[in-house]
Amino acid sequence: MIEPLERLIEVLARLPGLGRRSAERIALRLARDRNRALTDELIAALTELRTRVAQCRLCGGITTAEANPCAICTDPRRDPGILCVVEDPADIAAIEASGAFTGRYHALLGRLSAVRGEGRHHLRADELFRRVESEHIEEVVLALDTDAESEATARWLAEHLAALRVKTSRIACGLPVGSGIAYSDPQTLEQAIRRRVPL
Amino acid sequence: MIEPLERLIEVLARLPGLGRRSAERIALRLARDRNRALTDELIAALTELRTRVAQCRLCGGITTAEANPCAICTDPRRDPGILCVVEDPADIAAIEASGAFTGRYHALLGRLSAVRGEGRHHLRADELFRRVESEHIEEVVLALDTDAESEATARWLAEHLAALRVKTSRIACGLPVGSGIAYSDPQTLEQAIRRRVPL
Repeated sequence: MIEPLERLIEVLARLPGLGRRSAERIALRLARDRNRALTDELIAALTELRTRVAQCRLCGGITTAEANPCAICTDPRRDPGILCVVEDPADIAAIEASGAFTGRYHALLGRLSAVRGEGRHHLRADELFRRVESEHIEEVVLALDTDAESEATARWLAEHLAALRVKTSRIACGLPVGSGIAYSDPQTLEQAIRRRVPL
Repeated sequence: MIEPLERLIEVLARLPGLGRRSAERIALRLARDRNRALTDELIAALTELRTRVAQCRLCGGITTAEANPCAICTDPRRDPGILCVVEDPADIAAIEASGAFTGRYHALLGRLSAVRGEGRHHLRADELFRRVESEHIEEVVLALDTDAESEATARWLAEHLAALRVKTSRIACGLPVGSGIAYSDPQTLEQAIRRRVPL
């Protein structure tokens, strides 16, 4: 493969969900385009991301430089007393799509990791504790992932939030809607049974 | 989703192999990066593709502006008497990976399509016929995909090549019907080239 194409493949392969083969396929598609229309559109969109997209100074979510704090943080219809804590801005988008949450968010942009040596200063935890006090938050909902590092992060956050005397909850863990018992992994089933709710 | 991000997602989703969800995931990954390092690398690699990558004026494959004709076309170790005809530069890369072909290539960059109304001038067919005569080609190996449009293109090319009295063969066994050259594994392609049959 020629060098400029090789370099593009190497960068593309670092994007989430793309491996070497899918990166090659995309690079070759862009390279065979004689008028470079798609490449130009991609460069323009990335440049716009670079110049216009910002991190919300309140929640850590994604917003534009012109709208900071973001549209959710400044929406008067959102419940100001409840904060949903997520790891990543992508999680905010997913929860918004569910329509089930009417409060505001706080993105940690990281998590505790003994393996990578990442402690409390690798996540926006102090910002969270400050917000809980200054914004008189009544409830914090932890919506973290369910692997070991996220579990440890959630437990650590819950301890600190308890000291601030704020109600802390955790989104439920269990069977995905529409899935079958027989096809669920043992860990999910264990959680689903352990966290069963009275009817 | 904020507008600059929405625009990037829309462009990304037009790349091969990416749907709306995978495009969202990539855009959010780029947006959450505070120093924009990955976005910058991507813009730089795409800009280099835009400025340095060219179409080989002989085979239609991918090369740089400085190396035109391409490294394969000008390689004195390649058999000058045999041409492998492919649809797309991606197919050249896949066949090269198989190591089974020692001649040179000719990329059609299109195919006959009654549905899209694309005839002989939508593919580099006249360039192929001219090359067969001027370069004294002894054998043309057709390595096209195996769907209906590619089959029709192969039959049409075989007819015209017969009139030029050049031996024409077609890669054969091993290619699952309905699949594409670029996504075949090297072993399958090696067999398909080795067992090519005269037309």
